[in-house]
Amino acid sequence: MPEAPESPAPGPGTRRPGGRTARTRAAVRDAVLAGLVEHGYPGLTVEYVAEHSGVHKTTLYRRWGSLEGLLADALDLAGEDNWTPPDTGSLEGDLRALAREVVASFTDPVTSVSGSAIIAAAFQSRQAADALSAYYEERFKRCEPLVQRAVERGELPAAREGGIDAGALSRAACAPLFFRLFITREPVDERTADQAAAAAVAAAHAGVFTPARDEERVASASGAKETGTHTQP
Amino acid sequence: MPEAPESPAPGPGTRRPGGRTARTRAAVRDAVLAGLVEHGYPGLTVEYVAEHSGVHKTTLYRRWGSLEGLLADALDLAGEDNWTPPDTGSLEGDLRALAREVVASFTDPVTSVSGSAIIAAAFQSRQAADALSAYYEERFKRCEPLVQRAVERGELPAAREGGIDAGALSRAACAPLFFRLFITREPVDERTADQAAAAAVAAAHAGVFTPARDEERVASASGAKETGTHTQP
Repeated sequence: MPEAPESPAPGPGTRRPGGRTARTRAAVRDAVLAGLVEHGYPGLTVEYVAEHSGVHKTTLYRRWGSLEGLLADALDLAGEDNWTPPDTGSLEGDLRALAREVVASFTDPVTSVSGSAIIAAAFQSRQAADALSAYYEERFKRCEPLVQRAVERGELPAAREGGIDAGALSRAACAPLFFRLFITREPVDERTADQAAAAAVAAAHAGVFTPARDEERVASASGAKETGTHTQP
Repeated sequence: MPEAPESPAPGPGTRRPGGRTARTRAAVRDAVLAGLVEHGYPGLTVEYVAEHSGVHKTTLYRRWGSLEGLLADALDLAGEDNWTPPDTGSLEGDLRALAREVVASFTDPVTSVSGSAIIAAAFQSRQAADALSAYYEERFKRCEPLVQRAVERGELPAAREGGIDAGALSRAACAPLFFRLFITREPVDERTADQAAAAAVAAAHAGVFTPARDEERVASASGAKETGTHTQP
């Protein structure tokens, strides 16, 4: 899931697929992430990446253009894993597992540092921000089967019943965690994760992520605004 | 609400309360925010603050200790306004107005820049992170009357019915916006704000933020995980 992109340092004998080019790209990615962890984006230099990847500076500039290009490619590569969303047998179980992955990833002392260094870099580099945005868009796209399974189980409305905005639902299960981690900077744990998942499920069942019911909901809420009555059952 | 801390440049004739010390502090705060907007945290210097506030560098070091101290105090001062949460007559109306304030604040070309510069600085400075955390904690504390009014109107459970976690509820209405603004870096608008508010209200009505029902919910959700049945009405 939308986890902290890791820096998988392969042990001896580990072989990367794709031959020399892929190995070089992975070595460069590892050096970029190590540099981010060590110095943050403002302190990251092409010299550092060259030194730690064993790839010559001239090659780095030729193939990646700039430090920003290096960072964006590291994130692209982090997205090229085979992660799939949890499949526990229920919508709430799946979203809870997803939310717990966010908590685990960003509270793990190793993965959390490079993950938050990339989120930080996006504040300072437009190219890093675009790469981060593309990374999460693709991650949440991978969550669509999770929502589709819930539709098939009858837990969520099918297309004929108005459907469900899968992207909004899976984002809703993760947003409160990222908000606490990186904005209000409060602790998160499995309880926070479970609450975020439960809130997303409740909102889905109330029709908040059902596009066809959107207009209707807004109208009913406006009515409630005038009369002060309940807008939800 | 949890908005982008502004840099209120007072017009001619505007008098700040508190006399000379307060004026100095405000001038220093304005210079810190201007520097953040212009250079970001990595480029902000005490020299810049001295030059733009008209306060001598020696005084800055003596009173604020460091750049981090200057930044933390700027944020403390930003929290010393008289903001109160919206009061529209309904819970959903209030949360929608709150969420829309977040959107307005972080899409406004002036206030958004200093707001996001402070969020960015928190990645690089522990003292800035602590100040940001305190800022938001206090902002959300100010949202408690909003929730209390909903309890009084009978929209949310009173203490005898299990009560409601006001902090979790008001955070839930804002989290999806901050998440899209600063993590997934997707556009936000009034529709996104209204959806976030509606989701928070639905979750509140489903008992997700009712502490006493927490255990019960977790138990019911675990049951659902095994059987694959609905966990929400």
